[in-house]
Amino acid sequence: VGIEGPSMKTEVPGPRSRNTEAVQFFCNYEESQGNYLVDVDGNRMLDLYTQIASIPIGKGRRLNSTFVNRPALGCLPPESFPQNLNETLLSVAPKGLRQVQTMACGSCANENAFKAACIWYRNKERGTTEPTKEELESCMINQNPGSPDLTILSFMGGFHGRTFGCLATTHSKAIHKLDIPTFDWPMAPFPKLKYPLDEFEKENTQEENRCLEEVEDLIVKYRKRGKNVAAIIVEPIQSEGGDNHASNEFFRKLRDISKKHGTAFVCDEVQTGGGGTGKFWAHEHWGLDDPADIVTFSKKLLSGGYFYKDVLRPIGGYRIFNTWLGDPSKNLLLSEVLKVIRAENLIDNVNRSGKILLNGLLDLQARYPHVLSKTRGKGTFCSVDAPDEASRNKLVLKMRNKGVVLGGCGDKSIRFRPALVFQEHHAHLFLNLFNDILADF
Amino acid sequence: VGIEGPSMKTEVPGPRSRNTEAVQFFCNYEESQGNYLVDVDGNRMLDLYTQIASIPIGKGRRLNSTFVNRPALGCLPPESFPQNLNETLLSVAPKGLRQVQTMACGSCANENAFKAACIWYRNKERGTTEPTKEELESCMINQNPGSPDLTILSFMGGFHGRTFGCLATTHSKAIHKLDIPTFDWPMAPFPKLKYPLDEFEKENTQEENRCLEEVEDLIVKYRKRGKNVAAIIVEPIQSEGGDNHASNEFFRKLRDISKKHGTAFVCDEVQTGGGGTGKFWAHEHWGLDDPADIVTFSKKLLSGGYFYKDVLRPIGGYRIFNTWLGDPSKNLLLSEVLKVIRAENLIDNVNRSGKILLNGLLDLQARYPHVLSKTRGKGTFCSVDAPDEASRNKLVLKMRNKGVVLGGCGDKSIRFRPALVFQEHHAHLFLNLFNDILADF
Ligand code: FES
Repeated sequence: VGIEGPSMKTEVPGPRSRNTEAVQFFCNYEESQGNYLVDVDGNRMLDLYTQIASIPIGKGRRLNSTFVNRPALGCLPPESFPQNLNETLLSVAPKGLRQVQTMACGSCANENAFKAACIWYRNKERGTTEPTKEELESCMINQNPGSPDLTILSFMGGFHGRTFGCLATTHSKAIHKLDIPTFDWPMAPFPKLKYPLDEFEKENTQEENRCLEEVEDLIVKYRKRGKNVAAIIVEPIQSEGGDNHASNEFFRKLRDISKKHGTAFVCDEVQTGGGGTGKFWAHEHWGLDDPADIVTFSKKLLSGGYFYKDVLRPIGGYRIFNTWLGDPSKNLLLSEVLKVIRAENLIDNVNRSGKILLNGLLDLQARYPHVLSKTRGKGTFCSVDAPDEASRNKLVLKMRNKGVVLGGCGDKSIRFRPALVFQEHHAHLFLNLFNDILADF
Repeated sequence: VGIEGPSMKTEVPGPRSRNTEAVQFFCNYEESQGNYLVDVDGNRMLDLYTQIASIPIGKGRRLNSTFVNRPALGCLPPESFPQNLNETLLSVAPKGLRQVQTMACGSCANENAFKAACIWYRNKERGTTEPTKEELESCMINQNPGSPDLTILSFMGGFHGRTFGCLATTHSKAIHKLDIPTFDWPMAPFPKLKYPLDEFEKENTQEENRCLEEVEDLIVKYRKRGKNVAAIIVEPIQSEGGDNHASNEFFRKLRDISKKHGTAFVCDEVQTGGGGTGKFWAHEHWGLDDPADIVTFSKKLLSGGYFYKDVLRPIGGYRIFNTWLGDPSKNLLLSEVLKVIRAENLIDNVNRSGKILLNGLLDLQARYPHVLSKTRGKGTFCSVDAPDEASRNKLVLKMRNKGVVLGGCGDKSIRFRPALVFQEHHAHLFLNLFNDILADF
C-alpha cells in the first residue's frame, strides 16, 4: 500500500510516549497499516511482534481501527487510552480509589483482584517488595514459599465467577462447582435476613453478628493453620445466590474486621455496579468513607476490571498482566453509555421507576401472599420469592409468554434487572401483566 | 420510541428458536430496541433480565447492533450465531474436533478446557453423569468428593495463562507466579533440544524419551497419591517459555501416553494457532489422525475458546458457562479475517516468507556465531537466541530504533511473530536491517 519501509523520527520510546513499566510505547493505530506500526511520535516500524502474536492479517484493513486493531494494552496502548480511561472508567471511580486496572470480563477482574491482594499481602509479610532467590525458584514449581498458602475468604451464597480462582469463592449452586478441583479457602455464612427488614430488626442484627463472628473466627483459625487470609470478597447484594441483602451496618463491621486483620476488602460489583441499585455503585449505599480496597466490575461497564487503592499497585511490570488487558473498543462504547446516563439522568430514573416497581411488588405480595414473599430491592435491582423452584420457573415462563423476560436467581427467587432506561410506565406495564398472571396462579 | 408494549406471536421459545440446554431462545438484536427484546419468531418482550444485568442503557441505541448489544451467548444468542459459528470457527476446526465452545480470551479458554476435562474424567470414574447427593453437597464447601483432587499435568517452560487454574500450569517466568497461591499439580520437564535438530538427532531423541518417561512416572505417582491426572496440556511450540520445539515423534508418543492413562490431551494453540507456523494449526505438523481431545485458541482468532471431541460435551446446561461466553462482534471480524486469509492465500504466503526469514537467520547465525545461536522456526514463527538477556534486550532496542518491532521470549530469545500478510520483501528488509545491527554488535 505504498509504504516504502520504516521511517524513524525519534528514538523509541520517543518524547510523546510516556514510559511506564510494561508499556513499550504508545501507538497511533489510525496511521498504522499492514505490517507497519506507527507510534505517537510518528515513527513507522516494521512489526514483527503483532501484539504478542494476536493480529492475524495486519493492521487497519477493511474495518474501523478501534474495532479491528485490538492492542495488547499492557505493552502497546493506543495514544488515546490514558485520556480515554480518564473520561470513562476513572470518571466513575468509587470514592477513595484512584487506580483502575482494565480487564476483559468479571472473572479476570476477580482473579486479578485476588492476585493483587496476594502480592500486596506477601509484600507486607516479607517487609520488602524484593523476593528471595528461594521464593523465585520455588514458585516455578508451585511450592512454598514462592507459592504461598494464602487464602481468600468468601461467603456462602456468593458468586464471583467460574474460573478456578473465582470458583473457589463461589458458593451459589452446586452445578457450578461439581467435579472441579478447588482450594481449601475459608467461607463464612452470609446473613439470612427476615423480611420486611424493618419488622425483624432485632433478629436480623443478631443474625448478622453471628456471621461476623464467624468471619473473625475463620480468619484466626486459618491463620493458625498457616493459611493467612489475604482478602475478603463480598457482593453488596448477593445476586446469583438469590438477591440476599445485608444492612449497611453489617458491611461497616465487616470492613472493620478486614482492617483489624490486615486483610484486603474486595467489593464485587460485577452485577450490582453501573446504576441499577439507584447509585452508580451499590456500596455507596453503605455511606462509608473507606468502603473497600478493591472494587471489581464488569457487565454494565461493558468490559471488566477493578478499581484499587494506590498501595495495592504492584511494583514492577508484568505482575498483573495478560495479552489484551481488556478491550478499548468496549471503552469507546462505555464513553457513549456514560454520556447517555448523564444526559438523561438515568440514575434518577432508576430511583423513580425502582420505587414504583418495589412498591408495586409489595402490593402484589400483600394481595397474593400464598405466591409471593420476601419482596426486596434497591433501585430497580429488585426481587421476590416464589414458594418453590417449580412455581418460580412457571411464573417466569408464564410471564415470558405474556411478553416479559425475567430471570431467576437462588433457589426460588425472581430477579429484576432492567436496563437503566426502564421508565415508570414500563414498571406499571409489568405490574399489570404480573397481576394478571398471579390472579390465575 | 413508539413501541407500545409487548407483542407476542408465538409461545416462547417459538418454532424458530431451537431449544438447547441453557439457551432460552434466539434473539433478533436488529429489531430489539430500548427495553424490548425481540426473538427470532418476532415476539417482542419487555426485558427485565438484560443479559444477566449486563446491558446498561437498553438495546440498539446509537451504535451498530452487533457492537453495542453484547449478548449473553449461553442464554440469549443472536439468531445468526450458529450460522456465524459454522462460517467462522467451525470452518477452521482441527481434524477430528466438531464442537466449539467460544470464550473471550486465552485464559478462559484454558480454564474451561480444564473444567471440561475434569467433568469428563469424573463422569468416567463414577460411571454415570448423575452426581450423588454427597457430591452435590460437598462441592458447595470446596470438599471431596464433589471437589475432587484431580490434577492437570503441564510442562516446565510452558505458558497457559495467568488466572489461577492456568497459572498452576504456567512455568515460564517466576514473576508470573510469585506470591500467588496455587495447586500441587504435576509438571514434567520439556525436552531441551540441541540445534540444528538434524545434527543432534540421537541426543534429542534420548532427551525426548527421558521427558516422556517422566510424564508417565508423574501420572502414576500422582494417581497413587489420589490425585489423578485429568488432562495433559502442552503447546506445539512453547512460546513465552522461549520458543522451545519438540519433534512430531515426541507429540505422537505423548498423545499415546494420554490415551493409555485415560487422560485428556489438551493442545494449547493460543499463540501458535491461526496460520503463523505455515499451517492453520501448528499441531497439524504432527501428522496425527487423532492429535488432541481439546484444542484451545485465542489471539489471532480474535476472541477465545476451544474445539473439543463430542465425548467431552458436558451433559446439562450451565456446567461450562459465563455471562458473555465470548463476543459475536469479534466473530464478525473473524469472518472478515478468514475471508482475507483464503482470498489472498496467506498461509502459502507465510510459508514463502517464513522460508526467507528462517534461511536468512541461519545465514546471519553462520556469519555472527558469537551473537546468534539456535535459529529455529516453522513458517514465520521463528526465533533465535542471543548470548544472554542483556544482549537480547539491546538487540531488540537497537532494532526498534531502526524501525523494527521485535519481542523477546524465554531468557534470551528473540521471537518473530509477524502478521500473516508479512511478505518476502518484508523479510528481506528485516534481514538487511538486522545484518547492519549485527555487523556493529
Ligand atoms: S477470563 Fe476474562 S475474558 Fe477471559
